[in-house]
Amino acid sequence: MFKLYGVYAPIATPFENGKIAYDKLEKNLKFWLESDLSGVVVMGSNGEFVLLTPEEKEELTRFVCKQAKGKKPVVTGTGAESTAETMRLNEMAAKAGSDAVLIVTPNYYKGEMTDPVLARFYTDVADASPLPVILYNMPRNAGINISAKLAVELAKHPNIIGIKDSGGNIVQIADMIRNAPPNFSVFAGSASYLFTSLALGATGGTLALANVFPNECARLQKLFEAGKMKEARDLQMNLIDSNNAVTARWGIPGLKAAMEMIGLYGGDPRPPLLPLKEADREELRKVLTRTGFFPKA
Amino acid sequence: MFKLYGVYAPIATPFENGKIAYDKLEKNLKFWLESDLSGVVVMGSNGEFVLLTPEEKEELTRFVCKQAKGKKPVVTGTGAESTAETMRLNEMAAKAGSDAVLIVTPNYYKGEMTDPVLARFYTDVADASPLPVILYNMPRNAGINISAKLAVELAKHPNIIGIKDSGGNIVQIADMIRNAPPNFSVFAGSASYLFTSLALGATGGTLALANVFPNECARLQKLFEAGKMKEARDLQMNLIDSNNAVTARWGIPGLKAAMEMIGLYGGDPRPPLLPLKEADREELRKVLTRTGFFPKA
Amino acid sequence: MFKLYGVYAPIATPFENGKIAYDKLEKNLKFWLESDLSGVVVMGSNGEFVLLTPEEKEELTRFVCKQAKGKKPVVTGTGAESTAETMRLNEMAAKAGSDAVLIVTPNYYKGEMTDPVLARFYTDVADASPLPVILYNMPRNAGINISAKLAVELAKHPNIIGIKDSGGNIVQIADMIRNAPPNFSVFAGSASYLFTSLALGATGGTLALANVFPNECARLQKLFEAGKMKEARDLQMNLIDSNNAVTARWGIPGLKAAMEMIGLYGGDPRPPLLPLKEADREELRKVLTRTGFFPKA
Amino acid sequence: MFKLYGVYAPIATPFENGKIAYDKLEKNLKFWLESDLSGVVVMGSNGEFVLLTPEEKEELTRFVCKQAKGKKPVVTGTGAESTAETMRLNEMAAKAGSDAVLIVTPNYYKGEMTDPVLARFYTDVADASPLPVILYNMPRNAGINISAKLAVELAKHPNIIGIKDSGGNIVQIADMIRNAPPNFSVFAGSASYLFTSLALGATGGTLALANVFPNECARLQKLFEAGKMKEARDLQMNLIDSNNAVTARWGIPGLKAAMEMIGLYGGDPRPPLLPLKEADREELRKVLTRTGFFPKA
Repeated sequence: MFKLYGVYAPIATPFENGKIAYDKLEKNLKFWLESDLSGVVVMGSNGEFVLLTPEEKEELTRFVCKQAKGKKPVVTGTGAESTAETMRLNEMAAKAGSDAVLIVTPNYYKGEMTDPVLARFYTDVADASPLPVILYNMPRNAGINISAKLAVELAKHPNIIGIKDSGGNIVQIADMIRNAPPNFSVFAGSASYLFTSLALGATGGTLALANVFPNECARLQKLFEAGKMKEARDLQMNLIDSNNAVTARWGIPGLKAAMEMIGLYGGDPRPPLLPLKEADREELRKVLTRTGFFPKA
Repeated sequence: MFKLYGVYAPIATPFENGKIAYDKLEKNLKFWLESDLSGVVVMGSNGEFVLLTPEEKEELTRFVCKQAKGKKPVVTGTGAESTAETMRLNEMAAKAGSDAVLIVTPNYYKGEMTDPVLARFYTDVADASPLPVILYNMPRNAGINISAKLAVELAKHPNIIGIKDSGGNIVQIADMIRNAPPNFSVFAGSASYLFTSLALGATGGTLALANVFPNECARLQKLFEAGKMKEARDLQMNLIDSNNAVTARWGIPGLKAAMEMIGLYGGDPRPPLLPLKEADREELRKVLTRTGFFPKA
Repeated sequence: MFKLYGVYAPIATPFENGKIAYDKLEKNLKFWLESDLSGVVVMGSNGEFVLLTPEEKEELTRFVCKQAKGKKPVVTGTGAESTAETMRLNEMAAKAGSDAVLIVTPNYYKGEMTDPVLARFYTDVADASPLPVILYNMPRNAGINISAKLAVELAKHPNIIGIKDSGGNIVQIADMIRNAPPNFSVFAGSASYLFTSLALGATGGTLALANVFPNECARLQKLFEAGKMKEARDLQMNLIDSNNAVTARWGIPGLKAAMEMIGLYGGDPRPPLLPLKEADREELRKVLTRTGFFPKA
Repeated sequence: MFKLYGVYAPIATPFENGKIAYDKLEKNLKFWLESDLSGVVVMGSNGEFVLLTPEEKEELTRFVCKQAKGKKPVVTGTGAESTAETMRLNEMAAKAGSDAVLIVTPNYYKGEMTDPVLARFYTDVADASPLPVILYNMPRNAGINISAKLAVELAKHPNIIGIKDSGGNIVQIADMIRNAPPNFSVFAGSASYLFTSLALGATGGTLALANVFPNECARLQKLFEAGKMKEARDLQMNLIDSNNAVTARWGIPGLKAAMEMIGLYGGDPRPPLLPLKEADREELRKVLTRTGFFPKA
């Protein structure tokens, strides 16, 4: 069975003239698929999945799976507000050739997303899913937290193989790791706490920053696994500012601008998201440059 | 031009065997359309709009507009995460015969929904919309607040005619009313602060409770407008518990159960929402009964 | 027994060279005691009570009670983290001649201030208090909310006569009023929702702004009680910006600067609070001037 | 100069019949001072410092310093709402023989505790302090966060030697460590993230759990420093439940009950804090027992 391990990039979806730019995506994918990444996530939060139409979701998933085939595993984001739509997307992802699905908490009816409701949702979805299910805890976007207790309970389901935790509460991550069955994989959801998560027993991470610095992110895990704690820690410290720049600080507009700076296609995000302003772009360039990984002109 | 005034019910969407039950909806609509309500909102939060497919949204809007034609105005909820999808739904709503559109804030990318981004979103949408636009502030679900400052700025747009405020911060409501142009309508988003909102100058409300007690909710406004302050206040006090029961306390499951208790069709909400538990149903019945409006068996 | 009614000013404590300036306080008090206020609160949040030594608290309370004697009632803030210290301050307040005590929730151990702990605290304190007790709900400072349910439960205690609610959740205020015994007084804790609180049945308010515009704040209640709803509402709308300026926006530094602008002694707040900056002072002057109540130079 | 390093216990203050029980404290201190702890903190949050009178604070500090003299360093909590009172307590702590002072953010006027106000507060206090100053970030109690940016700025002050961070945001801890001067010590404020903090470069921690399991907490750091990562990690995992029991879950009542279970004097906390209920006590015993460190009857 598919095992969640290593560093994944939750790939950005490139747009041009309001449509998905598949030629640009192909080039970007070539970079990621030839990198040291363990795999890619399509239609994650950084992939602007909530801004895609049902038709685009299917087309995009197919395209990425086809490109990645034989090279790296593809995890497809299939979370939706309704159970039925999530199930439909899971079927779609399976047909397209994905290796697993990543399912964010339904989140519009926050007050009603109690632990029992979420437990039922994930259980129903995992029961029906043709692909292994990865929980996706994303409190910053969803306004909902998958508690360690709930994750541990769901980890017993044979078709739920792991969690991507983007909450970043390190004790919650520790609680998941120490209480879940050993074959349940906990993934850091952000590069800023990859090192500490690995130290606790996480098996890798899905990191926005891996779109920009895939090899450096993957190297952090390699250093850690080789017991080179000081180097791993120093690399972790180095990555925080640039990771923050493409997540909390400037979000997807920042991520796409950073991609352009390393030679990928970024383009504008889809409205209502707005492209990064020029002044922020200059500041972003400085942040990336300070890492020392940034190709000098 | 359409003017937002009076008490509206954000109507529940009835499901049977997983599909929209139009025969049941027809009967429910008859009750609401013959009541003292000023109008109905289709595809509001209580209409489970995020759980409907694009096809269902169109079919449902058409059905409600057809039934309501010549009887009461219809406001259609058309908010979506992407600007393009919101625009598409606005066109659909216009073709179906709606009188206005109600647009919730995009909300998945919370960190990026700054005031300038929201201002641009609503301006773009209002520029293109064939129907008058009503802002929808729903912090409890969206995790985002439309500040009074932003609402007042947007109120200058000729195609933005009002706001439904479900945040319930009474000073924020006062700020909107006193600073926006006089033709901009502020609507209470919940029955629990209808009276105080009217006292400040709100022109009405869109109230989940109006699905259940349409005439009583409408009566509150009539009493207020007739200067019967004590009666209006007493009625307000009476409505709070039952309103809370069908909103914050038990949400849509509570609303649908309450509808059944007054003789409408409620049915189960769409998963992941779960129907109200039996014990809660008994408690709900007591709450409704205490109002004195509840038909005794 | 003492009955909580009307508009109170939670008076600022004037400092000069790091000490309480009693001569300045005497002049300020003359203004407030000759105004239309119903009473004063000494050692409220605006009185910087947490920045006073035990000796200063006693001296200050005695001074204010002596000045106010025969003119207006004095409510003394006696909240402290420990039950014992609160009880000690209550005895002190009684000996000094206060009419009632205002007791904020203990708040440092937030996680442990559950409803049962708060219920026990207020009950123990009220049992022992020689003066009637007023609950003080101040979530913005305390980080704790006295729920309507808890307030209603405590309202049954014969020595607990009311609550000052500075939370401003208008439905919570409605819940307290409709569910507490009729002799329990609910006071608005801020001028911005005085009108709506009165409309629901509050008996008055303790308002930072009443330090600056005592007669105008008192007039709002008179207009309301005379059934002049439109005038009351318009005055409410007028007061919001200046109230905001001396509370949420600029806090005690803003309040003290505003006092200086109307001819009272303000002075610097006690560190760590810093005096208002010059630029903010100019902006504050504009806000006060826009009310039309502000004496033109 | 004093250097902040190792594991400290923020010692509980024992009460009997409402007074500090110095005979009980002496026995408890003997246990801690003979343990592997690096030092003790008197009048931390776990010492119920906000519930002590000024006289008790002085007496307690003197007592602890006298007992610890020549054995282990003493850090004294001297935070107060006013700058002047904090300075006074710093003088007191110095005279009593403390090695450093730990100063929590003033926190009642939350809205006004901006970064510039906090910067000025800590700078003024550190300028005047006869002892080295340790910042104390305690968002759960104070409702205020000392940002990494502010901590790093303050770290430049020659008399500010470190921070105890009880916020637990691991990226914030990383930010402080990587950006502050190397002689600035970052201390974990809770046993649940001691291991991950050490991995990032923290120099130790002040841990409620160290009252109960001092040697086990100290051992975690020793294992880490010896490069025994797996053992350190496993010990970390073991300590989380018991740490949670004496902090977030049951607070000081839980801590005092746990102390009794290992043979120390616990006693009741001071009201309004209430002693742990019997049922919770049983559950607590189970949690402690599961560690394997708990002496079997």
